[in-house]
Amino acid sequence: MNGAQALIRTLVDAGVDVCFMNPGTSEMHFVAALDDVPEMHGVLALFEGVATGAADGYARMADRPAATLLHLGPGLGNGLANLHNARKGHTPVVNIVGDHATYHKQFDAQLESDIETVARNVSSWIRTSTSTADLARDTAEAVAVASGPPAQVATLILPADVSWTEGAEPVTPNAAATPNTVDPAVIAQLAAVLLGDEHAALFIGGRACRADALVDASRIVNTTGSKLIAETFPSRIERGAGRVPVDRLAYLAEFAAMQLDGLKHLIVVDTKPPVSFFAYPGKASDLVPEGCTVHVLAGTSDDVAGALAALASAVDAPADAATIQAPGRPDLPTGPLTAEGVCSALGALMPEGTIVSDEGNTSGLFAAGFTAGAPAHDWLTLTGGAIGQGLPAALGAAVACPDRQVIALESDGSAMYTMQAWWTMAREQLNVITILFNNSSYAVLNMELQRVGATNVGVKAKEMLDLTRPDLDFVALATGMGVPATRATTAEEFVAQFQAALATTGPSVIEAIVASII
Amino acid sequence: MNGAQALIRTLVDAGVDVCFMNPGTSEMHFVAALDDVPEMHGVLALFEGVATGAADGYARMADRPAATLLHLGPGLGNGLANLHNARKGHTPVVNIVGDHATYHKQFDAQLESDIETVARNVSSWIRTSTSTADLARDTAEAVAVASGPPAQVATLILPADVSWTEGAEPVTPNAAATPNTVDPAVIAQLAAVLLGDEHAALFIGGRACRADALVDASRIVNTTGSKLIAETFPSRIERGAGRVPVDRLAYLAEFAAMQLDGLKHLIVVDTKPPVSFFAYPGKASDLVPEGCTVHVLAGTSDDVAGALAALASAVDAPADAATIQAPGRPDLPTGPLTAEGVCSALGALMPEGTIVSDEGNTSGLFAAGFTAGAPAHDWLTLTGGAIGQGLPAALGAAVACPDRQVIALESDGSAMYTMQAWWTMAREQLNVITILFNNSSYAVLNMELQRVGATNVGVKAKEMLDLTRPDLDFVALATGMGVPATRATTAEEFVAQFQAALATTGPSVIEAIVASII
Repeated sequence: MNGAQALIRTLVDAGVDVCFMNPGTSEMHFVAALDDVPEMHGVLALFEGVATGAADGYARMADRPAATLLHLGPGLGNGLANLHNARKGHTPVVNIVGDHATYHKQFDAQLESDIETVARNVSSWIRTSTSTADLARDTAEAVAVASGPPAQVATLILPADVSWTEGAEPVTPNAAATPNTVDPAVIAQLAAVLLGDEHAALFIGGRACRADALVDASRIVNTTGSKLIAETFPSRIERGAGRVPVDRLAYLAEFAAMQLDGLKHLIVVDTKPPVSFFAYPGKASDLVPEGCTVHVLAGTSDDVAGALAALASAVDAPADAATIQAPGRPDLPTGPLTAEGVCSALGALMPEGTIVSDEGNTSGLFAAGFTAGAPAHDWLTLTGGAIGQGLPAALGAAVACPDRQVIALESDGSAMYTMQAWWTMAREQLNVITILFNNSSYAVLNMELQRVGATNVGVKAKEMLDLTRPDLDFVALATGMGVPATRATTAEEFVAQFQAALATTGPSVIEAIVASII
Repeated sequence: MNGAQALIRTLVDAGVDVCFMNPGTSEMHFVAALDDVPEMHGVLALFEGVATGAADGYARMADRPAATLLHLGPGLGNGLANLHNARKGHTPVVNIVGDHATYHKQFDAQLESDIETVARNVSSWIRTSTSTADLARDTAEAVAVASGPPAQVATLILPADVSWTEGAEPVTPNAAATPNTVDPAVIAQLAAVLLGDEHAALFIGGRACRADALVDASRIVNTTGSKLIAETFPSRIERGAGRVPVDRLAYLAEFAAMQLDGLKHLIVVDTKPPVSFFAYPGKASDLVPEGCTVHVLAGTSDDVAGALAALASAVDAPADAATIQAPGRPDLPTGPLTAEGVCSALGALMPEGTIVSDEGNTSGLFAAGFTAGAPAHDWLTLTGGAIGQGLPAALGAAVACPDRQVIALESDGSAMYTMQAWWTMAREQLNVITILFNNSSYAVLNMELQRVGATNVGVKAKEMLDLTRPDLDFVALATGMGVPATRATTAEEFVAQFQAALATTGPSVIEAIVASII
């Protein structure tokens, strides 16, 4: 078999059986080899940012990596923003980037560029596989490194001749690495902190936001009178009725400071100490209150759930000490449509097992509150702050969980980066409802313009944040990519359209015309 | 004034008065400062690849750089593919990438990443401006470096606090650098080669494809019995009736080899010796025939037009020795619409001064032939091979030349990368007609799949090259972004729609439904 065939066989044997791809000429042997390995599911994306964002969304739900297939340096560049989000969320991705044949690189052909420098922005493991004989071994290593712990983006650069040359053999997968067990001395020390008199909080992220870990976290804080706060943008948080409710740290540093005020101990679990998303003149970047000591319970290489369980035992937390969210749904909205109304309809109607990909930005601000008591569901957020992630992540989540309802909360400005995701949703007939908040502006930037202290804002500046002239028509855009779409301007319309979308399979888009809440 | 104000003032004073931008929070002071420098024209793009491709197209026509404004590493990543094209075409671009405040970087906030590594893929000049006092000086240097010679992409990284801090002053522009004069000994030596008995060709690119330089090139080859061949993908070629006709080297190496066959001397002018676009098993990468000597007349830092004029003198070329294209237009097509018919309608109807941004790929193959005798026009091509360049380049060209008709020849697959350009065309009311060849496939890849020797191609592989299921509706997509659009399925419909589009100002899209020619 040739290199490409061995590569794909090795991926599949290692559990990577989905590849989100936007191939070019240098990847044609990989494409041809898809038919030789029937277990591999190739998913075509019409833009690389869709492929990489989908791989991110897939792995958040599947807890194992998907592969991407990208075309040389420019293809990787197009996929970089969503790989950045994957990196920041510690999501495993096996990134395969085709390159010119090894002997062709010296000629500096048009598409020649330094792929490794681009990859370095998002990958700590980068390998250019230079021999067909070693390709399967490199592939197995890429999967192992990506899977972690710590999970990460691993980038395998695949020269065309390494791909097309015969004589390759697949290899058996590397043994899965096991996470580190947190030192019992650390557990004991942090139990003492929590049981002490000083005000403490668990600040959780990553795998600590999964349902079982959250139960232990809640047991700990309830037993010790501490506070539980999740990071602002968790990769995946399991929530809803029957699960542990947890407030996320606010995006706005002013509000975050209020949440953290008075803390003397902040125990960080699978995340980093809180910092301001951006810098603002005269405001602190580090959100840890003065006089507050930061402790680390567990990080990306550790057994996070095990550490929380051990800490719960160490503080003698009763088994039933966790706070459990009672079921509860908001009323259906009526009257003129608002962002708040959309979010209450979401809370009122979303089915059990829904996966929400949240890039609603300012318009989605009410969504967490209105869905708190909805049936158990998963919530995926913008881990790295690079917008254009919501639709691809929804697509990937739907590929990972074909039996669940996926809902993308998307905003007009963000949708425009990677809306090509709709086409792939249509092709794969994925069960994704996009709720598109159209408020005709980069609303978050209108707010940020004030917050950074840019005063006396003039006409030209305001135009750069305005998405009118012309208005974007998302019904036309979605329809143009083969996804049925409707527009809602009243709450009643929205509810009827949302109910209809929930009752059908396959993708749909609802454009919700709302005022900016800013 | 603050850093941003001084930066923009310095740009304008140095002749950079257009900025294609997709800003975020860290660029808000730059945005606010737009109103303080009225000469700066800020052009909003809804995706960074549009901004960078527009800057490329602008500079090809204006012969001076535009600025871009991008948001941190992910924003630069999204803009990278078209910066790659600019780099390969030696187009000047002043790339401004906002970054976190200098003191904020240590906290590794969500959008933190290593911007310089990404920039290195496309920029040889990269500077992070770390003090407000030096920002204007850095800006002037960025413009000077970008302008060249050699022209290039210069990347200025702008931390938010450097932008917002007061106390900056603009600086006067750096003096423009002058190109090197080619050594008379080189001229004399190459004149001897051309006047000798062995078969020789001028292989031209870059500024040698401008009208005046082409006249001298044609005088040279006609006087010496040599051949004139242009590079496959010139940045801008001036052509049409009254200008020098020149064949471009074929994209397919097999055909290129025929064009170069028998040459003993290849004199390279502002380009590189010809190489195959991709590597193919068993085929040569280097297209220079065996036994052919490569000579360099002038490169990117040289006075290319001056070198050609000197060489014309050295071979005693008569002033009127150039081949001049006679006017001539094809007949209007009739009957079922084909890619060939679209191209003949283009040749029959395009007005004098048209700028064609050509990303028609396989469908556009006939365009050069059918427009050879059309009134004088400019032709912009895919310099770096990274698709998604055609629409942004058309946008930028239209900003540079508001009084001229711009026509984007675009193909379905390529359009999907950066179609957000249509929205900006609508907002700026640019005179761009997009002719969208919809053949429902990545046709070039169907061809490449065979050419790379991937035989026994199966169902799964073919699906990865197919753009149906669902069909893309480009009329809906363009309309959704505010651009009037029509669909043509017969030649008569296409002609009528094209005539109507030519008779109006502002952007329009014609979706031409054609069969793949492959």
